[in-house]
Amino acid sequence: MASSGNVGPLEGVQAFVFDVFGTVVDWQGTVSAELRTLTQGLAEEDWISFAQEWRKGYYQTTRRVAQGGVGPSNVDVMHREILDGMLASEKWKHLAALWDDKKRHELVHIWHRLNGWPDASEGLHALKKKAIIGTLSNGNVRLLVDMAKHAGLPWDVVFAGDLLGSYKPNPKMYLGAVQLLSLHPEQVVMVAAHINDLRAAASHGLRTVYVRRPTEDAAERDAVRPKVEGGEVDVVVDSFVELAAVL
Amino acid sequence: MASSGNVGPLEGVQAFVFDVFGTVVDWQGTVSAELRTLTQGLAEEDWISFAQEWRKGYYQTTRRVAQGGVGPSNVDVMHREILDGMLASEKWKHLAALWDDKKRHELVHIWHRLNGWPDASEGLHALKKKAIIGTLSNGNVRLLVDMAKHAGLPWDVVFAGDLLGSYKPNPKMYLGAVQLLSLHPEQVVMVAAHINDLRAAASHGLRTVYVRRPTEDAAERDAVRPKVEGGEVDVVVDSFVELAAVL
Repeated sequence: MASSGNVGPLEGVQAFVFDVFGTVVDWQGTVSAELRTLTQGLAEEDWISFAQEWRKGYYQTTRRVAQGGVGPSNVDVMHREILDGMLASEKWKHLAALWDDKKRHELVHIWHRLNGWPDASEGLHALKKKAIIGTLSNGNVRLLVDMAKHAGLPWDVVFAGDLLGSYKPNPKMYLGAVQLLSLHPEQVVMVAAHINDLRAAASHGLRTVYVRRPTEDAAERDAVRPKVEGGEVDVVVDSFVELAAVL
Repeated sequence: MASSGNVGPLEGVQAFVFDVFGTVVDWQGTVSAELRTLTQGLAEEDWISFAQEWRKGYYQTTRRVAQGGVGPSNVDVMHREILDGMLASEKWKHLAALWDDKKRHELVHIWHRLNGWPDASEGLHALKKKAIIGTLSNGNVRLLVDMAKHAGLPWDVVFAGDLLGSYKPNPKMYLGAVQLLSLHPEQVVMVAAHINDLRAAASHGLRTVYVRRPTEDAAERDAVRPKVEGGEVDVVVDSFVELAAVL
């Protein structure tokens, strides 16, 4: 727990909840590298572009469901639907015949074993000694548990889309986590590499930490500032090790 | 994960979910000792009897709610109601005036920092390398997170009463955990020191491990046998270290 004598922008916080894809783990690097490895002989594809399109479909679908639209409540199902859609598209249809049902199932599970950013495991271990740490991800519970084991992420608790019954930025996600932690919103920090996630969290009273990550928020990243410098978030860091030292 | 070559009564299992009070942590020893420490000058009370009555109230209330009855959905609230009831009773009313609201709040939180049985932390660390491990407790999320930090319990995931929306033995608890793990019931093992908990789990297709603990199931404990000996559970052990070695 943060000591009661702690001062500064995170004074009094007891728990940190983390966006996962992009914030804790490097989805782009891992998915593109795994696609390359798993599809030997097709190495000349632009796998980064493939990973980005897959990710974009996930973002659009979770956003639509979060706003009340229809869609899968489990991101494994969602990742498969998007993959099938891509493989029916003009751009990627030449890959469709190469990947049967079993192979596509395997590809979907790439998202369960993404690698952490270099500071992730060390920083979370340090932070865990000072506060409660948990996921607050649109991923499903099983995906997040598999990823934690793969990447050495010592979560105290896993909050997930299928568990809280929606996706970010639906308020159920932020307020559900706060309630299950028996805390007030201002005692909980949302940590993300996406300013939109932090804006939604802040609108419900949570504190905010922005982490700059090379694959995320390219257009906004360099402009995000802490409140002390006239910005909108509580803290800006470049790693979780830096975050653990702030508390 | 259990290797696919694993044989025996736990063949093919991927996750273990644990009852917590009595199975992982020694509620009777910790609560009675903490009551003694926190109430210096009243040391001549029978604090084990007090702890047992408190625990009995919890058991009766969770059971009633699990069967559709009315009661608090958070065990902190429940523990406080039962404590207040005890302090209004003939047996304990002489303590009522000594414990104001703040003190009672403090006493309720004893249940957040129960000590693990001597094998608990070591055994769970060993088992975590082979499978997913999680709680499946009627306790609330925050209580279980606090207890894990206190007793060194490295859960991959926390399943709790307030999270799954009921209490054991309601089917929502067992089947909710199985669904959130994206597994089939026979791939999940319920671990408990209470035969009734295991009977409920087995009725929904989960595997079962019975752990003999000195404070639990006094009347039934010595008669519980594994199926290989004509009994009703899959495995009987005396510690989590023994359990980790079985897998």
